[in-house]
Amino acid sequence: MVSKALAKYIRSLHQRKYRQRHAAFLVEGAKSVLELLGAGLAIEHLVATPAFAPQLAAARAPLHLASEEELTQLGTLQTNAAALAVVRQPALGPLLPTLPTTQLVLALDGVADPGNLGTLWRLADWYGLPGLVLSEHCADPFNPKAVAASMGAFGRVPVWAGRDLATWLSELPAETAVFGADLHGDNVHRLALAPRGVLVMGSESHGLSEAVGQALTQRLHIPHGPGGRAESLNVAVSAAILLDNFFRGVS
Amino acid sequence: MVSKALAKYIRSLHQRKYRQRHAAFLVEGAKSVLELLGAGLAIEHLVATPAFAPQLAAARAPLHLASEEELTQLGTLQTNAAALAVVRQPALGPLLPTLPTTQLVLALDGVADPGNLGTLWRLADWYGLPGLVLSEHCADPFNPKAVAASMGAFGRVPVWAGRDLATWLSELPAETAVFGADLHGDNVHRLALAPRGVLVMGSESHGLSEAVGQALTQRLHIPHGPGGRAESLNVAVSAAILLDNFFRGVS
Repeated sequence: MVSKALAKYIRSLHQRKYRQRHAAFLVEGAKSVLELLGAGLAIEHLVATPAFAPQLAAARAPLHLASEEELTQLGTLQTNAAALAVVRQPALGPLLPTLPTTQLVLALDGVADPGNLGTLWRLADWYGLPGLVLSEHCADPFNPKAVAASMGAFGRVPVWAGRDLATWLSELPAETAVFGADLHGDNVHRLALAPRGVLVMGSESHGLSEAVGQALTQRLHIPHGPGGRAESLNVAVSAAILLDNFFRGVS
Repeated sequence: MVSKALAKYIRSLHQRKYRQRHAAFLVEGAKSVLELLGAGLAIEHLVATPAFAPQLAAARAPLHLASEEELTQLGTLQTNAAALAVVRQPALGPLLPTLPTTQLVLALDGVADPGNLGTLWRLADWYGLPGLVLSEHCADPFNPKAVAASMGAFGRVPVWAGRDLATWLSELPAETAVFGADLHGDNVHRLALAPRGVLVMGSESHGLSEAVGQALTQRLHIPHGPGGRAESLNVAVSAAILLDNFFRGVS
């Protein structure tokens, strides 16, 4: 049973304001909730259908049963026949003055769509990146769409935030490579890129902000195919192509 | 002014059933509507705010003025301060028994999310592919989210459909290369791929169908980064990485 008070609390977490106030967020659907169980995050509540509940037997959190209809009404998915969880937001990692010098970090400069943010998080997880850096004005990583699109990366790849991105980049040690995508940059196919430093991806509508652009040490260009006419690529798609080029030498 | 009858017609096109019945679809927002003007598609109606209308002066279609609020209520975007268009659906191209032998075609096997479908369409446009093939059970390419995510590709890259994908693939000339993504396939970094044949991408939840899998001539694997743990990548992200690998030799 889900009490009226709990239902109200859960539904409040659809909104960023209440996610921040309560420092909590929702994880929804069978796959994401099962990923959550191994993630080491603190779970406040689990809500599951009777059919799915046995799969949550090992979880250390209060378990509430609900019909598929009730569960769907509590969450943001079009339908949910499995479960949702209310989870404590982990503290965002601070943006430190230095980086792991042997790894590449992905930084997002105003990526506003939660689905794109989640897809980029999933990419960071695929490439084993140590963290995902968010500028101000990015989508909320605890938005249910970002969490869903991350496909479990929310429990594995830490998010670092809390400082102005351009200032942080400009204060990194001088030898830190800072890469950004640019239509007039160097063709990535002609470079031997090593996965060390920071790769910054700009916002969907405005690309990189001017201040961040000034902190770049190299601009990278993804070539069109012959006859290709699209003006640009989706931000997650661009990041994917760049990351594959960074990791060609090591995989 | 938008008449009540026109408003009702426009809103009906939010639903696939009515898009099919009327063989029409919506194009929304400044960028997409401006792309539309050069696309050679038949426009039934344009609705624009007075501020945006001058940019549509050259269009050959009835222009209706509406406030930003009215316009937003007619369409599917969260806000629309510019314009929307009602456009005739172009006939989908038939799946012919042979392919342009010097080009690569992207085929989607049950890609169900309209945003993913649109992002893949945009990718096909970036790489200059001659067409996008859709199996049955794909999202509707004329879904407003697919049209928006295609970023103008809806007017440049034709969609081919109308036959069972596996049957079509199996009946292509024997020398046609048919590629698909597979976690156990060949590492794309160790291959010299030429952009000729068909690249098939599977559905978000089930990957390639068994029948399509049997028609493949080569399975391709995108390597993880060291320590990477995500089980899979988003379908558009995977397609992007594969296409970049196909076109490395020519760009």
